[in-house]
Amino acid sequence: MKPKYCIINGVQLDIDKAGIGVNDLALQRGYGIFDFFKIIDNKPVFVQFHLDRFYRSASGMHLTVKYSREELISQVLQLVAANDLPVSGVKLTLTGGYSSDGFTLGEPNLIITQSALPSYRDINGNGISIITWEHQRQMPEVKTIDYLMAVYLQPVLKERNAQDVLYHNNGLLSECPRSNIFIVNRNGQVLTPANNVLAGITRGRILELQTDIDIRPADITLEDLDNAAEVFITSSTKNILPVTRINNRVIGDGQPGFITQRLAGLLVEQIHLSTKGS
Amino acid sequence: MKPKYCIINGVQLDIDKAGIGVNDLALQRGYGIFDFFKIIDNKPVFVQFHLDRFYRSASGMHLTVKYSREELISQVLQLVAANDLPVSGVKLTLTGGYSSDGFTLGEPNLIITQSALPSYRDINGNGISIITWEHQRQMPEVKTIDYLMAVYLQPVLKERNAQDVLYHNNGLLSECPRSNIFIVNRNGQVLTPANNVLAGITRGRILELQTDIDIRPADITLEDLDNAAEVFITSSTKNILPVTRINNRVIGDGQPGFITQRLAGLLVEQIHLSTKGS
Repeated sequence: MKPKYCIINGVQLDIDKAGIGVNDLALQRGYGIFDFFKIIDNKPVFVQFHLDRFYRSASGMHLTVKYSREELISQVLQLVAANDLPVSGVKLTLTGGYSSDGFTLGEPNLIITQSALPSYRDINGNGISIITWEHQRQMPEVKTIDYLMAVYLQPVLKERNAQDVLYHNNGLLSECPRSNIFIVNRNGQVLTPANNVLAGITRGRILELQTDIDIRPADITLEDLDNAAEVFITSSTKNILPVTRINNRVIGDGQPGFITQRLAGLLVEQIHLSTKGS
Repeated sequence: MKPKYCIINGVQLDIDKAGIGVNDLALQRGYGIFDFFKIIDNKPVFVQFHLDRFYRSASGMHLTVKYSREELISQVLQLVAANDLPVSGVKLTLTGGYSSDGFTLGEPNLIITQSALPSYRDINGNGISIITWEHQRQMPEVKTIDYLMAVYLQPVLKERNAQDVLYHNNGLLSECPRSNIFIVNRNGQVLTPANNVLAGITRGRILELQTDIDIRPADITLEDLDNAAEVFITSSTKNILPVTRINNRVIGDGQPGFITQRLAGLLVEQIHLSTKGS
């Protein structure tokens, strides 16, 4: 289930032969942005929200996207048709471009890749285990390619038998490297960190759900986390994934909570509607 | 004065045709390390110190260098001979490698590039102007490719008519993105930030100079900077570069200071000895 093709600057290429020159600022200086969305039945999920954020990230980093929204979608659909991976992920990466002096921005390179999706079902049943780590991502509101700390921490996660890490700074929770965090407090309120986080598309969809559940952004402390009745993380690939252990302490009764499950069902409904184009 | 060749994983390639596959973790996740040293008369300067740091950075980031020190030097000399740029810079970049899942480390790619050096002489005469900025690089002791904030701040520097930016955090100075900072205080002591900075090779050579001048690492506050008699920055390309304006405030009499000039002379002597192989 390996994709055969990618698209670089509008040109479809065999992925094993496609490359980016060594002077690109993504390689040289870690400078670039991206976005990532799911493909279900060959159709992109919540693609307009992802493109909104993609253009916003580019602009926030002084990078220009030389394609319109329609051109981007057309390239994505071309790649999806070529690769034949009906359930997968598509990544748009925009780099700092080739730089004459190794520092000044060049003309951005746009890379579109597709990948098979990891299955989270096996761990979804009982929820995952996470650890907490003091760190604040630089430029948290922008979806930059900076995952230095996240990749660096992989061995630590293995060592502690955890599946993800939750960053906190000055006593406040922010986010996991590739997902947003939500807690359900003892009053049944559903809270997600309000500041210094990436505006996750799944997070956004949950905040806008029409339901009697009280869902809102808020400042959340480590103590709030300790007292949470339920905890879950969200992302485009994971949807809603229950967290049942934090730093090896069991949350609630160690099983995915009732509100988490209700929200997971509502979210899946929204995803279904998104791919039906309604 | 453009280099014609680079070396990727031991193979010399035409730089316009050389590329790195789109799944490399440097491109995808900003994950990689590098080192950079000057070439004078086709000879690398302080190369053993740079290689020490290169292997240390790699190891600190769980990356393996599959070449010995001798093999690396041999590849560097091969590239230098091929490109014919007697005064230049050489960069060794080690990436996170091709990743099967876009996150887990692969086998690192080693890229060796050479570039013409910018001339700092024109601005050296009167010293440069810098601004201060609150920021702390992640993993400061490792020479990672993370220059996200530095590249991002380029327009701010232009706007404020400054040539560089000095990071500080919790009231303490750390470093500029590509150089270390030194101040000369009113007692004639030469101080450079002790913690949360990259161990610059030029910084190290200055700290080890045999001289009657008192030179030492220390915690330096923004107030110490305000009261400094002289300020300069150091790097492999810039050697010692006087700073005569900070946030548009003139340092001393606005001219490169006497101790700065003495140290600059002593440093040039050490560089000369280094390329002579003694």
